[in-house]
Amino acid sequence: MTYNHLIEQIRIKRSFLCVGLDSDRQLLPLHLRHHWNALFLFNREIIDATAPYTVAYKPNTAFYEAEGVNGWRQLSDTVQYIRARYPNIMVIADAKRGDIGNTAQRYARAFFEEMNVDAVTLAPYMGVDSIDPFLAYKDKWVVVLALTSNASASDFELMPLTNGQPLYEAVIEKYSQHGTKEQMMFVVGATRPQKLAEIRKIVPDHFLLVPGVGAQGGSVADVAKYGMNAQCGLIVNLSRDIIYAGTDENFARAAGEKAKEIAQEMGRFLTK
Amino acid sequence: MTYNHLIEQIRIKRSFLCVGLDSDRQLLPLHLRHHWNALFLFNREIIDATAPYTVAYKPNTAFYEAEGVNGWRQLSDTVQYIRARYPNIMVIADAKRGDIGNTAQRYARAFFEEMNVDAVTLAPYMGVDSIDPFLAYKDKWVVVLALTSNASASDFELMPLTNGQPLYEAVIEKYSQHGTKEQMMFVVGATRPQKLAEIRKIVPDHFLLVPGVGAQGGSVADVAKYGMNAQCGLIVNLSRDIIYAGTDENFARAAGEKAKEIAQEMGRFLTK
Repeated sequence: MTYNHLIEQIRIKRSFLCVGLDSDRQLLPLHLRHHWNALFLFNREIIDATAPYTVAYKPNTAFYEAEGVNGWRQLSDTVQYIRARYPNIMVIADAKRGDIGNTAQRYARAFFEEMNVDAVTLAPYMGVDSIDPFLAYKDKWVVVLALTSNASASDFELMPLTNGQPLYEAVIEKYSQHGTKEQMMFVVGATRPQKLAEIRKIVPDHFLLVPGVGAQGGSVADVAKYGMNAQCGLIVNLSRDIIYAGTDENFARAAGEKAKEIAQEMGRFLTK
Repeated sequence: MTYNHLIEQIRIKRSFLCVGLDSDRQLLPLHLRHHWNALFLFNREIIDATAPYTVAYKPNTAFYEAEGVNGWRQLSDTVQYIRARYPNIMVIADAKRGDIGNTAQRYARAFFEEMNVDAVTLAPYMGVDSIDPFLAYKDKWVVVLALTSNASASDFELMPLTNGQPLYEAVIEKYSQHGTKEQMMFVVGATRPQKLAEIRKIVPDHFLLVPGVGAQGGSVADVAKYGMNAQCGLIVNLSRDIIYAGTDENFARAAGEKAKEIAQEMGRFLTK
């Protein structure tokens, strides 16, 4: 998916919502839990119900790997379902991978060829040579962790380097020189919204993928206020608040209604 | 596997060798390449040939994910094979995961329950709350990336913080306060061997998992010189140099001979 295609979808849907498919068997409606492919069956209904309000889906690989080989199968089936049925919706594998070049090449193959997602999240610790193999794929995206939404982000991400710059800013600066706005985004949590304004000074044009709204305490209004640029430049992820909005057989309708409500809130911040 | 069990195995085998199962279909002997489970068939022979000289196996998840669902199946089969046949050999999933607590819990389940490895490598960027769910498993290990063997380690890992300490030292200091030597190791590349001496001042007793010997340029002698402690405290990984030592139908014998040669070199540095 190209940068312009993504912007167009945000304008058409008047939404910059990403639905996080963090699907856990133990939290699914009872009538689904005992199917071997419960995660996929659940996702399929969630996707159909939320697609009109959504510009991206973000399955987190952890929830699928927790079911072993069957989980990887259900992740793959989920991605294929979205791509076949909703080709205008971006699929982001939230994998947070990161390895030396030789190995990174295999991860790039895993996610961009074998699974065929549009984007993958990557950890920055090992430096830029760990992302080069991903950037070699045209119209595919890397989403680099910058400032995450968890409490321990203060352990290293917020630590100042000798030039006074916190580590996460050095990460954004370094990687943004390495990947254009057409191929690179940054993860910035909604739990520290004022930081979004600082980050916009470094990367005015890159998309930011923002988790941490809802269950983790961040708000759409704050993210829009501090992080939006002229092209929107934001993809805001909600997971649990949407996918577990309902708990019974009508779970998908509840998820759809919640997604619609959030998309409507987002629409008010979109000027174009 | 416990700390004492690992030390005992090093003494018995007079080796601190870890064989990295970075198995790539395109690099396998021709007669295996076209089997659906070529990686597993290859690994099984490599394992049988190298087990006498090896205290740990380290499959890197990237090489298996590159084959999609079948790859994940072959990874799982490889781990089960080692556990069933060589219960005294540690299995380290080189996964470099790292995510917020809620998600990290699922990764812990994936690797420690579903796949049942002894240890998993983790990325430190997001801070200590991303490893707590792993430490909750008794006799399981986390191996935290500290100073990796790639060139771009200089991008962030070697960057000095305001107190003058490079980031990788801050990582070791922080995490070592969080996990005991019974449950935590650190990844330190052999490509900067003098740094091992610095690291030993911070963590005299923790095991270090050392990649970068062989194809990447590091040497066993330098690693032993700068990194060994009274209990050995080292696991040195070789991947390509061993698993691709031979290229024809006798590949496993060639791998076994190479592993034996390296183990003999290691034995000379073990005093107990």
